[in-house]
This record gives sequence, C-alpha cells and structure tokens, in this order.
Amino acid sequence: MTEHIGVALFGAGRIGKIHAGNLARHPHTQLRYVVDVHRPAAEALAAEHGAIVVGIDEALADPGVAAVVIGSSTDTHADLILRAAAAGKAIFCEKPVDLDVTRARACAEAVRQAGVTCMIGFQRRFDPTFAALKQRLDAGEIGTPEVLIVTSRDPGPPAAAYIAHSGGVFKDMLIHDFDIFRWILGGEAVSVHATGGCPNMPEVAAAGDISHAAVTLRTRDGALCQINTSRRAAYGYDQRFEVLGSKGLLQAGNVRPTEVVAWSGDAISSDKPEAFFLERYCAAYSLEIEHFFDALVNGTPVRTTIEDGIKALELAEVATRSWREGKAMECAI
Amino acid sequence: MTEHIGVALFGAGRIGKIHAGNLARHPHTQLRYVVDVHRPAAEALAAEHGAIVVGIDEALADPGVAAVVIGSSTDTHADLILRAAAAGKAIFCEKPVDLDVTRARACAEAVRQAGVTCMIGFQRRFDPTFAALKQRLDAGEIGTPEVLIVTSRDPGPPAAAYIAHSGGVFKDMLIHDFDIFRWILGGEAVSVHATGGCPNMPEVAAAGDISHAAVTLRTRDGALCQINTSRRAAYGYDQRFEVLGSKGLLQAGNVRPTEVVAWSGDAISSDKPEAFFLERYCAAYSLEIEHFFDALVNGTPVRTTIEDGIKALELAEVATRSWREGKAMECAI
Amino acid sequence: MTEHIGVALFGAGRIGKIHAGNLARHPHTQLRYVVDVHRPAAEALAAEHGAIVVGIDEALADPGVAAVVIGSSTDTHADLILRAAAAGKAIFCEKPVDLDVTRARACAEAVRQAGVTCMIGFQRRFDPTFAALKQRLDAGEIGTPEVLIVTSRDPGPPAAAYIAHSGGVFKDMLIHDFDIFRWILGGEAVSVHATGGCPNMPEVAAAGDISHAAVTLRTRDGALCQINTSRRAAYGYDQRFEVLGSKGLLQAGNVRPTEVVAWSGDAISSDKPEAFFLERYCAAYSLEIEHFFDALVNGTPVRTTIEDGIKALELAEVATRSWREGKAMECAI
Amino acid sequence: MTEHIGVALFGAGRIGKIHAGNLARHPHTQLRYVVDVHRPAAEALAAEHGAIVVGIDEALADPGVAAVVIGSSTDTHADLILRAAAAGKAIFCEKPVDLDVTRARACAEAVRQAGVTCMIGFQRRFDPTFAALKQRLDAGEIGTPEVLIVTSRDPGPPAAAYIAHSGGVFKDMLIHDFDIFRWILGGEAVSVHATGGCPNMPEVAAAGDISHAAVTLRTRDGALCQINTSRRAAYGYDQRFEVLGSKGLLQAGNVRPTEVVAWSGDAISSDKPEAFFLERYCAAYSLEIEHFFDALVNGTPVRTTIEDGIKALELAEVATRSWREGKAMECAI
Repeated sequence: MTEHIGVALFGAGRIGKIHAGNLARHPHTQLRYVVDVHRPAAEALAAEHGAIVVGIDEALADPGVAAVVIGSSTDTHADLILRAAAAGKAIFCEKPVDLDVTRARACAEAVRQAGVTCMIGFQRRFDPTFAALKQRLDAGEIGTPEVLIVTSRDPGPPAAAYIAHSGGVFKDMLIHDFDIFRWILGGEAVSVHATGGCPNMPEVAAAGDISHAAVTLRTRDGALCQINTSRRAAYGYDQRFEVLGSKGLLQAGNVRPTEVVAWSGDAISSDKPEAFFLERYCAAYSLEIEHFFDALVNGTPVRTTIEDGIKALELAEVATRSWREGKAMECAI
Repeated sequence: MTEHIGVALFGAGRIGKIHAGNLARHPHTQLRYVVDVHRPAAEALAAEHGAIVVGIDEALADPGVAAVVIGSSTDTHADLILRAAAAGKAIFCEKPVDLDVTRARACAEAVRQAGVTCMIGFQRRFDPTFAALKQRLDAGEIGTPEVLIVTSRDPGPPAAAYIAHSGGVFKDMLIHDFDIFRWILGGEAVSVHATGGCPNMPEVAAAGDISHAAVTLRTRDGALCQINTSRRAAYGYDQRFEVLGSKGLLQAGNVRPTEVVAWSGDAISSDKPEAFFLERYCAAYSLEIEHFFDALVNGTPVRTTIEDGIKALELAEVATRSWREGKAMECAI
Repeated sequence: MTEHIGVALFGAGRIGKIHAGNLARHPHTQLRYVVDVHRPAAEALAAEHGAIVVGIDEALADPGVAAVVIGSSTDTHADLILRAAAAGKAIFCEKPVDLDVTRARACAEAVRQAGVTCMIGFQRRFDPTFAALKQRLDAGEIGTPEVLIVTSRDPGPPAAAYIAHSGGVFKDMLIHDFDIFRWILGGEAVSVHATGGCPNMPEVAAAGDISHAAVTLRTRDGALCQINTSRRAAYGYDQRFEVLGSKGLLQAGNVRPTEVVAWSGDAISSDKPEAFFLERYCAAYSLEIEHFFDALVNGTPVRTTIEDGIKALELAEVATRSWREGKAMECAI
Repeated sequence: MTEHIGVALFGAGRIGKIHAGNLARHPHTQLRYVVDVHRPAAEALAAEHGAIVVGIDEALADPGVAAVVIGSSTDTHADLILRAAAAGKAIFCEKPVDLDVTRARACAEAVRQAGVTCMIGFQRRFDPTFAALKQRLDAGEIGTPEVLIVTSRDPGPPAAAYIAHSGGVFKDMLIHDFDIFRWILGGEAVSVHATGGCPNMPEVAAAGDISHAAVTLRTRDGALCQINTSRRAAYGYDQRFEVLGSKGLLQAGNVRPTEVVAWSGDAISSDKPEAFFLERYCAAYSLEIEHFFDALVNGTPVRTTIEDGIKALELAEVATRSWREGKAMECAI
C-alpha cells in the first residue's frame, strides 16, 4: 500500500488544474500524464507537477497508470470512460456521464463488466457543511425527512454559446441538485414537475433554454422536494438547502469569505456568499479526490457511483420533458 | 370626524377577543355589541369592553352601528356579509369569505351593489417585517421580482374534526400564502401545480386531507413561486419568504420572542420562532384593525378587499384540483 | 382588589406620556391628576386620559391618590419623593433619585420611615430579552457568572446644555449599566476603574464631561465586569451585554425593527438596532409600570427599590472619581 | 529569484509541524534541516519533508540556509535569534521574543545590527477575517477608530506546570491581544489598567497567576481599548473583536466549522466556534509563512517585526504590574 497510484489526468482546464493540485497533496498518488487537446495548457500543468504530456492511447497503455481523472469537456466523457474501463483503469469522471441517457447507461454497463471503480464528481456531497448535515440527518437528529427545499443559483449565466450546447439547465445545473435530492431524502422519485422561464434573460430564451426553474419531486415514501434555480443571482453563488423532519429542521447555509460584520448608518452587513463554485466547493473538490484515492488504496467502495450519475441524469431528462410538456410526470426511476 | 364609529363584533372566541382589544385602542371606535352563539363568551367579552350582548338582527338594526367585525366561524361569514351589506354597514371579515367560491362571489357582488367597504383579514400583509419587505421591493431595491419562495408551517395540526371541515389544507392554510403570492409578485397566476402527502401524519390522511403541500405558480410575466407548507414543525410556527429579483434578494424571516443567544458546550443557540399565529402576527392584527377604521374615518380604500379574498380562494380551489388530479393546471385567474 | 388605584403623574413630557399610556392599559389604575410646570403639556395629556391638571399640593392632598409616578426633571425627584412619602403615597420614580448621593440617601431614609413602596425606573430589568437572560442565568444554565461585558451606546449626544447639567456621563448614562452590573452579577463592587475621553466630540469636552467611557468593576466574589459606553453610535442605539459563566455564555442582543434581510451585490444586510430608548425599551416601560401596580394590588415587593437607585448612584460617583483621579478605586458599596 | 530559499526549522512540535507543512507549499522554499532536542520528533518531521536532522550549529553553519523558522520552546527563542542573526540568517520566530523584556530588546538590537529580516509570529494579523476588517478600517469605512473591544478566551487552561512557567497570562495569552490593540488602533498606549482573578479556577491561583483578566488601554489620541480574557470558555475558542468608529462599527467574529443550523423543539442552533488556535488560525499560519518568504523573495519588509514583538511584551509587562499593584499605570511605550 505504500506504492504510489499512477494517474493520468484528462483535461488541463479550470477543473483539471484543481484536480491536479489536490492529487499532489495525496500521499499515495503520482500524476504521470496530462492529456489535453489544447497542448500549451497540458504542458503548463504537466510542468508544474512533474508529469508528461501524452495522447489518450499512450496514457491508457501504461500499466503503471492505475487510475484516470476525467475533467475534459462533457462530450468526451463517455468515450474516455469506455476506453479507460476497457483498459482496466479506475475512473474518476466529472458530471455528467453524458448528455444522452442511453449513452450514459452504456458507460455504466461497460464499467460494470470491466469491474473497475468509477466515481462521478458530485463534489457537493463532500462539502463539509452538506456532509455534516447529512451525518446529523442519518443520526436521527430530526427524525424522518419529510420536505427538502433546495436553493441553487449561479451568480451569472455562462456565454450563450455554452448554453446552446449545455444540454439545458436541468442537465447542466440541476443535475447536482437532483443528486442532492436522492442523497438527502434517500429515496427515488415517483413524480416530477418542472416549470420555468427566462425573466429578464432573453438571451437564454434565444438559446432555447430557461434561466429560472422550479422543480417539485415526490418520493415513494411521500417526502417532497422543491428545487429553485436561476442562472443569475446579483449577490453571488447561492447554495443552500434545508430538510424538514418529523422532529426538527436542518439547514445548510452559504459560506462567507470572512466573518466581518459592519454596522453603518444604513444597515448591519455581512459578507456575500463565496463568489462561485471553485471558491464555494474548494474543500469539497479536495475531499472528493482524497476519497477516491483513499477508496482505491483501501479497496473500499466510492460514495458517488456511475449509477448515481445515471439516476441524476434520468431525473434531469424527466424534468426537461415535464417543463416542455407543461405537466407533472410520473416516473419510476 | 371626532365622533366614534359604532361597531358590532360577531364572534367572541380567540380571534374575536383580539379584535375587541385592538378596537379598544383605536381612538375613533366604540364597541357597542358582541354577538356570539356561545352566550357566556359574549357576556364576558362585552363586560370587559363596556359593550352589550345582542342578536344579529338587533346589532344590524342599530343605525349607530357603522361597521361590523366578523370573527365567527367560517360557515357564518357569507351570511353575515350579505346581511351586513344589506344593512349598509362597513365590513371587516376574517378569511376565507366562504369555502364555496360561488357563494363567496355572491358576497362580493352584494358588497359591490351595496357600495359598502369590505376588508378581508389577510393580516400578514400588515406584519411589520412583511410590509417592510414589500415596501422595499416596490421601491425597486432588488429590481424586478423573479422568484418567490414561501415557507409556511404550523407548529402542529388542529383536531382531526376541524380538518375534516376545514375545506382542506389549500383553503384553510395556504389561502394566506396565495394572498402573499399575489401581493408580492403583483400578478395573477397562469399555471398552478400542487402536490403533497401526509408523511408521519396518518390522522390527516384519514380526514381526507394532506398535511404537507408543495405548490408551484407561474405568473403571466414569467415570475415563479414555490410554496411549501406543513401542518407540523417541531420547532414552532415557521413563516418566512424570500424574493429573488434581478438585482438582489429580500428575505422576510421569523420573529423570535427574545434576542438571547446561548453558547454552550454543544452549540450556539437562539430562540425558536414565536409559538403560533396569535404571537407571530400580534402586531399585524393590531395594524389591520387600525387600517380598517382609519380607512373608514378618512374615506380611503382598504388594502385587502373582498376581491382579494375571492382570488386567493380561487387559487386554493385550483391547487386542490391540481393535487387531486396529479397534474399542473392552466388558469386565468 | 377590584377598586382602582388613584394615580397622580408628575411630568407630562416624553417619558410622562409613555407612563400615562401604560397606566391606561392597567386594569386597576385610574390616572386622576397630571402635574407639570409646563401647563399646556399637562392639559393635553390630562385631556387624553380623562385626568385633571392640578398643582403638587392638591395632587398629594387627595386621599384617593394612592400612588404617584414621577417623570419630571431630575432636579425635582428628591423633593417629590420626600413630599409623596410624607403624604403616604406609593412612589414610582425615574432614575436617578438625585444627582447628589447624600440627598438621595435622605430620600431613601424618608421612604423607609414612611413605610411606603418606592420603585426606581430601571426599566432595562424589564426588557424581555434582558429578563429572559437573567432568568436563564439564575436557573444555572451557564453555571456561575464570571465575566460581564456591557456595551451601551447612544445614537447621538444630547444638547451641550443638557450635558452640562446631566451630572456627567456616569450618573446620566452609566447609572443604568451599573444597575445591570449589580443585577446580573448579583454582587457588589469591591473595585472600580473608569477612564474615557472625547474622541471626535470636542463639544462634550467643552461641557466638562466625557463622551466615551470604559469602566471595569470587580465583585467580592472575583467576577469581572467591563462596561463600554459612548454618546454616539452612527448606526443607532446599541444595548447589548454578555455573561461568561463557568459552563457557557449568554448574550443579550439588540432588537431590530423588522426581520428583513437584503442580499445585494455588496453585502447581506439586516436592520440596524431600534433607534433609541423609547423604541428599544418600549415593552420594558410597559412591563415596569405593570409590575409596580401589580405589586401595589397584590401587596408584594417591587423589584427595583430606592436602595438599588442609591447603589447605582454610588457606583457612578466612584467611577467619576476614578476617571478624574486616573486611578482604580477600592470601594465597599 | 527562481532558486529556493534553504530553511532550517527549530522545533518539531505542534507548531513546528504546521510551519513545515506550510513551508512545503511555498514554491520558493526548501526545508533542509529540522532541529529539536527531542530526536524522534525531529526525525519523523524531517522524513516527511525530505529534510535532515542536525544540531543548531550545523544548521546555522550551512551557507545554503538563508532563513530559520523558530518554533521551539519560549526559553530558546532569544538564544536562537541571537545566533541566527550572528549567522546572517533571516528569522521567523514565534511569539514571545523572550519573557524578559531586557533580553528581548537585546535580540532586537542584535537583529538591527546584523541587518537581517526578523518577523515575529503574530499570526492573527493574517487571519482572513481580521485582515479584512483592518483593510476596511484603513479604507475609512467607519471613520476614525474610537473604541476597540477584544474578547479572547481559551477553551480550557494548559497544565498547571505550564502556567507556572508561562510568564503569566499577560505575556502568555494577552500578548496577542496587545498586538491586536496596537495594530487596529494604530497608536501606542499612554495608560494601562489591568485587573483579574481566578473565578472557579483555584489551580491557576495556586500557580501564582490569574485565569480571567480585564485590561483597559488608552492611546495618545484618546482611543479606548478593553480586552477581556479567560483561560476557559466552555463553548470553545472565542476570538472576536469590534471597533467603534466615528461613522460605524466593524466586528470580527468567530469562525465555525460548518454552516449547518438546526431548528429543534428547544432552540435554533449553529456550530460552536472552531476548537482552538490550530483550527481557528489554520489559514493565518499558512498566510504568515507565505508572507515571510514572499518578503524574502521580493526584498520587501515584513509586517510583524521584532519591534512589534517588543512593544506587545512591554504592554504585557505594564499590565502585569498594574494588576499586581492594583492601579492604573501611565506609560509611554
């Protein structure tokens, strides 16, 4: 167990850099290869961490590579999962598995057949605040969970070009919230209703998507979940949820950069939430990579499997249909 | 203007007593009559305020009575409104106008024809916190409202017998929240989706109702509203809402009995919210009565009309159907 | 017990009006007389409450007057206490008893000899937040109290003319905080150190006083208290304290007008504290009058006696000397 | 500038490990030597970071060592500073310089003569919350600072043996708060008053020290500062301060492990503060080391000099005398 796990990293962009930094801190990993179609980015990241820039084939052919970390663009995920599974590598892949559910299921099947570990990067489950809430919920602090309210707002929209190829707000943004729904309520949805619109954001409407969504889910056990999302919150990145249980309520609040409070002639003011996901989930990104490699080292299962990735994707698909058709959908996911 | 407005109060129960106390503080009113089928309650309340116990006819026949305050049981509202309107009295009536929309509309018509003032007791609009939020919203502090999230939970359920005749959770509880929706977003609903269940409250299911509800509304302007309600919150009466606007967010939080904060070996703790509506909306009940009589004295319009009462009732009816039929309802209320 | 207690009110100014309003709400009192050197003010207040304007002698000569409420200027307190005591009336008097300790002690002696009830208006003890903290402290929630930190800041200074005759910041402002010290720690001071200055307030220095003070007290039991005061807080009236005990901490925070929270591009903001003492201690003024007359009705002792008034005044005097002489003072108050 | 700065670390205990970890993250440092009288600790830490265990002389003799980090016990600080200065090394040293002011001044003189950089580890200045407050204060957000209130409480006392040799609470604990006083108010003290006791902590009294202290300082400009400290807070490590300025107030609050809030039948509860200094100032320890080596790399001055260390120590000494003699001390530090 004292040997290092050789790692190939796919994607040298924003998230790839974060994974590389966190890999460097893990005592039992060694980043061997960085793969990116944008060669200069790959070179820079590789140089920083003493790794080598290669192509996909070369990276997967090295028997010293036991694990891959996939942080490249969404349209490359499925192909890389299939090839890594075929090569017998353990896989860490960013969400979503694929925008197409059928294709994502094929990945899950391939992973199963290859018998490799595959973890999907639902990093929010590793956020210290969210994880502490989950632990207290599981410990019975508020009895049985009955209602989950999720607020999930981005500080501002991505470029219109991105939105057009994002798979839509349900697959692009809410997939995380659907995972939170499954994780916190611990049950699958029997009905989904989604609606939304583009108040004050005509550019999103022009891209065929919605900027604001309201989703309601019901579990087999009768628990309810309401999710509200928007592509813009003037005050920053808003990531909160609360669970009403039979014996109380647990809230997971935003994280602030500092604890300074100012009292002026106008109001009493504290910091806005962290700016965006890289800041808000900084600890979570570190903890999920730690979890993945700890699981490999110890031979224990990972907490967010490719099946979790499929389930969240299916909910996103049902929600998309509910919104398009303007009706609640029964489902047995 | 220095003369006193003679008032007849119908209902000497819990809410009647509150109205009587607030009437006593108004400089231009005089409580003349208390009417209640439960004679001892009427006697006690009348004695406390120097009023006389009479029957409905006698109270309405006195030309010195310019206004009636109706705080009796729901099934008496419509009849009293019709008779008071016919007698030319100004009317303050608790919500709902009636559980039957058709009957409620007939009341509105009678009020219109009689040309009398009729105010419905949506006291939440007078709550200092809610009213301040509305004022700041109207002043443009957060731009255009886009999303409204309403949390509205009772500390515990009423008796099963009450639930069976309550008209259902949408007419009994959410009617207030539907009024908040119309008041805050300033627009009517074009679609309504409601769902719910009875997690851990089989006695409510046995009464043919639901204890937990999740409602989604959309306005003509594309604004979204999600309401979550439950008949039980272990920690007390939970009355909050928040509005996301194009330029920011406004939240209206709960009110606590005191500002004591305790730091122990376990946690940092502050007071739970006020116990229930009489405590939480104590100031609001006072302010709504003040508003009603000020309007009478000054000849100005009241803020929560019988039309507002009808609209909220219609939303409750549509929501009930949405829940029963399991589908989103288009509506043009 | 059903008869009404006849009351004479001295002082028809700001505080006199508040007492008159609260008297009106008490079920067993009747305001008979209003006495004020400023006749129009007395007339207006008397008219509002159905009372009569008379002189001091006439008010005290009426055997139907069982109690007096003294809210006139400080320099009249001692004389009125002495005359009311001689007339056998129960006395409610605003703080301070007198600016001169010797004279105040003479009042206490007169009250004792006359055997009348005398309550000093330390209304803060009746503030719901402060009273709840005290109750929890007495219940042992945080063990033995060890350290008390009091923050007591006015929104802005009174007129320079007032300051010159106020008796100085320690007798004028901190007398309330000295009472809080005695009440919360439940022990007398064995040492007092006071210092201060006039940062940015030269007009206070010109009046021979200080605008900012820092006082440290130690009790016989070794508990410590730090009080910080200023004549100006740009954000409003700041009235907080916290008690460290052997098992935890209890904080009494400010009260806000509403629970609205605004999230903007700059910060997350809540209301400033209530503007000044009339708003902040609104409930306390009502509750102290209720307590006084309840005590008279029930023949029970009052909670803030003239001895409490003397003790707080003595501390103010020692603190003044400590500040003037620049050294800590031992004392055995 | 791309070469690495060779570093020798003195002390392989709790704080030494933290410095070693932070050194490892700095892009321009190389930990060469670990020195500790406890050999196994030195060996373990050296092994983890690829360093070598040597003696003091050997470490200082290596011309490849440009800087030393001193995290050994207090009684070794002065000697190591003198020797490192003589060897021309840049010095980072934990507070205090020495318990004896004369000896500490000799160190400062030696550092001055040697012309080496010497930074004292007042890590609190690097805490993100404290640093943000300071920046906003300097930007004029609340006008001129007038009053500083510092609350600084440890979760529990160290061993009695430690207390006996700690130099007393003023040099051991409050030295940090004296530095905060100088840093925030930006002026030196002209008077100091200190008092205290040992409520419920007889073991501290037995060691000749006090467990609870209350200190008041005044600056030449008339600004006031009150510090309250205790060796025990049942709820954890309490590190807060607030500054009243002519235009408002800035507060620096505690940091909580998570943002979970629980609403139960008893109260609304959030996390206690971080457990102790290693958790609370985790980021600060990292940032101070970063600052020190950045300063060396860039040839810029450090923010907390040995002169700052001397000044804080002098205040601790005056405070100790004030407490012992029971009187306020004038000083011209």
